[in-house]
Amino acid sequence: MRILGLDPGTAIIGFGVIDHIRGKDYCVDWGTITTPKEEPACQRLLDIYTDINSILTEYMPDQVAIERLFYGRNTTTAIEVAKACGVLTLAVYSRGLPITEYTPMEVKSSVTGYGKAEKQQVQYMITNILGLSSVPKPDDAADALAIAICHSHSSRMKELMK
Amino acid sequence: MRILGLDPGTAIIGFGVIDHIRGKDYCVDWGTITTPKEEPACQRLLDIYTDINSILTEYMPDQVAIERLFYGRNTTTAIEVAKACGVLTLAVYSRGLPITEYTPMEVKSSVTGYGKAEKQQVQYMITNILGLSSVPKPDDAADALAIAICHSHSSRMKELMK
Repeated sequence: MRILGLDPGTAIIGFGVIDHIRGKDYCVDWGTITTPKEEPACQRLLDIYTDINSILTEYMPDQVAIERLFYGRNTTTAIEVAKACGVLTLAVYSRGLPITEYTPMEVKSSVTGYGKAEKQQVQYMITNILGLSSVPKPDDAADALAIAICHSHSSRMKELMK
Repeated sequence: MRILGLDPGTAIIGFGVIDHIRGKDYCVDWGTITTPKEEPACQRLLDIYTDINSILTEYMPDQVAIERLFYGRNTTTAIEVAKACGVLTLAVYSRGLPITEYTPMEVKSSVTGYGKAEKQQVQYMITNILGLSSVPKPDDAADALAIAICHSHSSRMKELMK
């Protein structure tokens, strides 16, 4: 099963792709969608839609996981991030792909075993789980890989519970 | 010039279409996009995208105006309304149509001359301006017509300023 993790934002959206094969997670790729700050907000949404569609076409994920937005965090950009998140969700769902949301605490808890883990602990764990030689950069891409791993763990748990 | 006004929401999105001809506004139509509350959030975004595209194809507006979302209003649904707004903006802008945002205060001020006007005053004025025999229903559609009228007034002002 191939999983695409997404860490939403406006200027920068992290993505991470992993393959979950026989109980183990393998890293496929990671990167970011970036939109220039000087561009009109409408154009940035269109850029995000174009880029996420390219990523979906290139990596052909079976499932997609995304960070759940919270009202009360990052107040200045919350509305714009939510609009971007709507566009990402539309692109994924209109291809018939399931998309699951996870809170930051669920992601940290799943990856490190502790819901209030520091960023460095999360990055150490994803590097370890995926057998990478160094921490994936930038942070947004590392976060997206963590979201993908969280979904992989969650799916495995659901399978085991059946 | 044909203007489409949009009043964003998740369960109900109001739309209003007017023609601005030689300094006067004429009502073309109004209505709503509605999505069932029991549907998954992803499906509702896809419904909204499908429906706004149908509206754009049917009415062929030259310009689109939408209410600007505020962080701090309707806290419980703000994130979901912003996602819907992102999807609406994407649909409009990807057709090469300009989309302008107005605050509720700008709309009220433009339609009634008073930024803190009551809903009834706004509805009375749009009924009057468009020469309608009764207040358009539901409120979301009336609000969308007010947003379209606001854009018409604002465009005329910009023309006169040139």
